[in-house]
Amino acid sequence: MEHQNPDYLQDTEAIFTAANFVTDLGIEPTAIRPGEVEARLVVKSRHLQQDGVVHAGVQTTLADHTAGAAAYTVIRKGQRVLSTGFTVHLLQTASGEELRCKARVLRAGRRLIVVESEVYAVAAGTPRLASKATVTLAVMEPR
Amino acid sequence: MEHQNPDYLQDTEAIFTAANFVTDLGIEPTAIRPGEVEARLVVKSRHLQQDGVVHAGVQTTLADHTAGAAAYTVIRKGQRVLSTGFTVHLLQTASGEELRCKARVLRAGRRLIVVESEVYAVAAGTPRLASKATVTLAVMEPR
Amino acid sequence: MEHQNPDYLQDTEAIFTAANFVTDLGIEPTAIRPGEVEARLVVKSRHLQQDGVVHAGVQTTLADHTAGAAAYTVIRKGQRVLSTGFTVHLLQTASGEELRCKARVLRAGRRLIVVESEVYAVAAGTPRLASKATVTLAVMEPR
Amino acid sequence: MEHQNPDYLQDTEAIFTAANFVTDLGIEPTAIRPGEVEARLVVKSRHLQQDGVVHAGVQTTLADHTAGAAAYTVIRKGQRVLSTGFTVHLLQTASGEELRCKARVLRAGRRLIVVESEVYAVAAGTPRLASKATVTLAVMEPR
Repeated sequence: MEHQNPDYLQDTEAIFTAANFVTDLGIEPTAIRPGEVEARLVVKSRHLQQDGVVHAGVQTTLADHTAGAAAYTVIRKGQRVLSTGFTVHLLQTASGEELRCKARVLRAGRRLIVVESEVYAVAAGTPRLASKATVTLAVMEPR
Repeated sequence: MEHQNPDYLQDTEAIFTAANFVTDLGIEPTAIRPGEVEARLVVKSRHLQQDGVVHAGVQTTLADHTAGAAAYTVIRKGQRVLSTGFTVHLLQTASGEELRCKARVLRAGRRLIVVESEVYAVAAGTPRLASKATVTLAVMEPR
Repeated sequence: MEHQNPDYLQDTEAIFTAANFVTDLGIEPTAIRPGEVEARLVVKSRHLQQDGVVHAGVQTTLADHTAGAAAYTVIRKGQRVLSTGFTVHLLQTASGEELRCKARVLRAGRRLIVVESEVYAVAAGTPRLASKATVTLAVMEPR
Repeated sequence: MEHQNPDYLQDTEAIFTAANFVTDLGIEPTAIRPGEVEARLVVKSRHLQQDGVVHAGVQTTLADHTAGAAAYTVIRKGQRVLSTGFTVHLLQTASGEELRCKARVLRAGRRLIVVESEVYAVAAGTPRLASKATVTLAVMEPR
């Protein structure tokens, strides 16, 4: 996939640092390429739900935000993206020391971008696919 | 809808207080009835994304957890529920002082429960529907 | 909800008669109002799947097309809509003599319309909710 | 992925021939392996919608049924599967002489199986990804 923005790398990094909820949770990008972004989060006690596994909301936030970042790598300078909806399949409970997410643009339309995100839970160094999301994002023109 | 657990009220309240991520975000229940649960969250700066509106992940966490609570009101004593997946439609950007969620059990099967959650953003006292989710939960037997 | 097209009634009826797959299955509209459309299908042996109940694909076609029709009632003259995706929750197996669908516009944006469709299976005259879908449609400008 | 049923090949083929709606539309399997099934449909005029492209309901029926078949390849003899819901992302309009579907089991649980289906529209011999679905199926014990 091709980028259309010479500054796509900085502009995509910026949406991680500029989103309060993302820095608050501890999500950080680990790889940014045109059409693909990877990110991770170190699991802490505050991320868990009542059964001691990572809350679905944490996985979803990671999946959604990394998907938005992947969409950022293929839009034009000054455009933004906004999630209009997503579906998440929670395949296995997520526990371990880290979550890793890989997001990949499936279709980059002029107005809508569809992105797939896979979230892996890494326990004792071994990643297992915990959830898979498909995110639809609207492309917003510069204001 | 009927409850099947005489302690459904306390047991459902408990899944709010026992889930770290939920107390960390500030989500609290405001109404619990068989088949229906309402919850709210006071919006803080840490809940926002890069465009200054509430992050989709915050809305989704609220929608998913309140849906799980609604499912709790209709299961038997000792059973638990676990989300297996959900879909979220983000209808409008969410901003304001508070998010409110209403979750309603659509179908309570023996093994699967389907719940709808509506998230309203309250700005200057006026609630507007921000997102709507449908959550599928598996019923887990006591361990 | 308000219509923006004085001919919305005929234009919405036309998308039922102009869609080959819809007439082939026997889907017909029964009520058209701004933001809401109802349709039905008489169940025949050819609509069934291997377990003798109505195939999920028949329910989905009915849900999707009726949702598209509901979106048609709120767009401007000459615009069209195209489904960009949907989610279906199959709540109970569908059997009986007829399927009925009610579609309701949840959010009519300038570029995207979100519609909910409920499909009821009518057996011995009694309708039961069989499935519920949420459909997202893109608004297409006149060519 | 491993099969658990020595007759998985015939049992999976049978769900194509035993489903009226599937034979009526002209869907036929082209490859069956443990965890993966491929199927196709020759596009006819009756499969189209009002804009002259293949109706989303045809794509969805193909995606859902092929997903169900993929799930069949990994269950035990005598078990059945039933779709409990799915999500479809319609990435491009589908036109051409044939639809091809590839379904792949993403997660085979004891009670729930999650399958991904990709539908390609083949025009002038060239396949293009038209839609992608994720289907959740419940495993039913022998009656």
